[in-house]
Amino acid sequence: MAELVISQTEHKQRLSKISQQLNRQRLKALYLVNPTRILYATGFSYLPTERPLAVVIPRDGPIFLMGPALEHEHVRQDARLIEEIFAYPDYPGKVHPIRYFAKILTAKGLGTGRIATDSFEGAAGGYGYRGPSLTDVMRSARFLDGRDIIDKMRLVKSNSELRLLRESAKWSGIAHDILLENTKAGSWDLIAGVRSSLQALEKMLKRLNGSYRQLKWALSPLVVGYRGQIGPESAIPHTVFTKRKIRRGDVLVSEAGVEVGGYTSELERTVVVGKPSPKAAKYFTAMLEAQTSALKTFAPGVQCRTVDQASRLTVEKLGLEKQLLHHTGHGIGLEGHEPPWLDPGDDTIMRPGMVFSCEPGLYFPGYAGFRHSDSVTITKSGMSFITEYPRSLEELTIQA
Amino acid sequence: MAELVISQTEHKQRLSKISQQLNRQRLKALYLVNPTRILYATGFSYLPTERPLAVVIPRDGPIFLMGPALEHEHVRQDARLIEEIFAYPDYPGKVHPIRYFAKILTAKGLGTGRIATDSFEGAAGGYGYRGPSLTDVMRSARFLDGRDIIDKMRLVKSNSELRLLRESAKWSGIAHDILLENTKAGSWDLIAGVRSSLQALEKMLKRLNGSYRQLKWALSPLVVGYRGQIGPESAIPHTVFTKRKIRRGDVLVSEAGVEVGGYTSELERTVVVGKPSPKAAKYFTAMLEAQTSALKTFAPGVQCRTVDQASRLTVEKLGLEKQLLHHTGHGIGLEGHEPPWLDPGDDTIMRPGMVFSCEPGLYFPGYAGFRHSDSVTITKSGMSFITEYPRSLEELTIQA
Repeated sequence: MAELVISQTEHKQRLSKISQQLNRQRLKALYLVNPTRILYATGFSYLPTERPLAVVIPRDGPIFLMGPALEHEHVRQDARLIEEIFAYPDYPGKVHPIRYFAKILTAKGLGTGRIATDSFEGAAGGYGYRGPSLTDVMRSARFLDGRDIIDKMRLVKSNSELRLLRESAKWSGIAHDILLENTKAGSWDLIAGVRSSLQALEKMLKRLNGSYRQLKWALSPLVVGYRGQIGPESAIPHTVFTKRKIRRGDVLVSEAGVEVGGYTSELERTVVVGKPSPKAAKYFTAMLEAQTSALKTFAPGVQCRTVDQASRLTVEKLGLEKQLLHHTGHGIGLEGHEPPWLDPGDDTIMRPGMVFSCEPGLYFPGYAGFRHSDSVTITKSGMSFITEYPRSLEELTIQA
Repeated sequence: MAELVISQTEHKQRLSKISQQLNRQRLKALYLVNPTRILYATGFSYLPTERPLAVVIPRDGPIFLMGPALEHEHVRQDARLIEEIFAYPDYPGKVHPIRYFAKILTAKGLGTGRIATDSFEGAAGGYGYRGPSLTDVMRSARFLDGRDIIDKMRLVKSNSELRLLRESAKWSGIAHDILLENTKAGSWDLIAGVRSSLQALEKMLKRLNGSYRQLKWALSPLVVGYRGQIGPESAIPHTVFTKRKIRRGDVLVSEAGVEVGGYTSELERTVVVGKPSPKAAKYFTAMLEAQTSALKTFAPGVQCRTVDQASRLTVEKLGLEKQLLHHTGHGIGLEGHEPPWLDPGDDTIMRPGMVFSCEPGLYFPGYAGFRHSDSVTITKSGMSFITEYPRSLEELTIQA
């Protein structure tokens, strides 16, 4: 079985497109510090820390990486498309890494001219990082915002990206089945989540033995659970943790995501523990109608805002517009959220290969929240589901 | 049992210190976007996304938050020290959130004068966020780098911060015992890690029932495992995933961390599966000597670089200096890595209450890596361990 990652051939195609852009925009190089863009361009994945790390894709000449010594062997073994590595001892060091980077760039003929970058600082920062900005240290070069060179390429997914997203969604579905089996009144949602993640992960590693490769560090690349969205806490869409155990009658909101080759799909469901009350059934149905109306609008040539408008209109007709706390969805791929946005402020035209979450939510403070999230992709004629999972109240009711 | 979080009283003391700094530096307000700084100042924890969110601490007047509608109820329920909330519908929206923020700031009398901030952009960014920078939108105000106002306060830990770190370390130790029990030749290190995390988490939630509160979202707030540092892959300090199962004779490097009230300690051990070879024993002993020599130097009044020098000198005496790939350690607290650094380039003077990881590592590409990491705190007379866990080869050998 082939490894579930983007092939070296496809990475070479991506790099060649980047080179074309550099030529077209008369740029000498693209200087990258963002881990997602580095992964997209080269396939190299690493743990970002305070230590500056940059990948430089010159218009002419070999791709090189500048980073801490502790990544040297990692790059050499795992990132064959990066042809040269320049390592500094550690951060902050006796010589600041940014000054070291400036010397390398100058030696590489990049001390002058137009350089595209995704960070004028020259470093991703974080963890209390401090340093001079690259643009201040290299006054003879002209740095331009180069974020869109890669971000525009990421908008439309290739067939192999879609394959990884579908594999991700398949295991999210399997994990969600296990979660429903492990969900019981009287248990911590956190424990149900970790246990279900473990059980699904064991199944996945066994089945995909040898072809699965985790690219992003996490305790588990397969995550399923409720993230505290239990009973009244489900009315807080971004709650982090619940203080009490699951109870009979609770409305829960689940989430499942599996990283496959760096890509993650999104599957979320509203789940009811025990026979749903008439109130729960009513709001569940309203949410489902809103999602269904949004799902019907996905098609090439349609503006992103139209999808949001569709679910909003359905909710308004039901008189529940005050219960909407966010837009209908977002792009998804290498990052859990990425452009474009299914939002009144986004008029991006949808194209085949774009991938979105579709997740209008209704929230009733003190009572419960109702949200399904599906991942879908735009096709030549309309859309197709990436997540394929039951959406009805009957199928999402847990016998308690 | 009291909740294992920083008390509201302590948060008020922090806010009062921030106010004093604002007065001293003639600043009208501190504008924060970094989630860790917001958590430190106010106790509010949330999931950062592309949606801009800022907390403003004015020198005079109530603390307010500007953020997406989906966080409104979350702030109201969980962050009592934030007195006002201004919510926009969603990002990108018909009006860009940064323009909305500018209006609020102006209405609050902060449209002119000196404002400290941890982001001139006015937003933490990420997930493909784009926007005008706050400094461009508010040309009448003068923005200054305010990162150090909070970051300097974070350097020295209070007694309650140390208590949370010790509670974290206690559960890391329990989790590590379970990990050793679950580590066997023929198993995936990933599965051993997730299983051990689940088992330790169950124990922890049961014991701390009602007093434990997860502040940062993760599948599990308790993480123990090997992160792919298995056999030859243990020579890659920041590897992400291994392609093969654990084998007899492997050298493994473990890691354990538990989030308690937002704080995480660090416990890492070199583990050998089966009777250690003379080579493994030799390098293990060298690593242990390096760590021991570093541990002896921690004391108030000593420069951070001295700790690094001590372990480096020991390693040089053994002729293994080429095997060092990183400095000896880093500060730790609300973030897994934070200043100061046990690095040749850091001359910070150690003070009682500072907390560090101590983790010199020796790496042999193609063979194995050797690293223990302990968390320690500086005391009035020297240092004390936060992690208390066996360090000897005998105790870290797994019968296989």
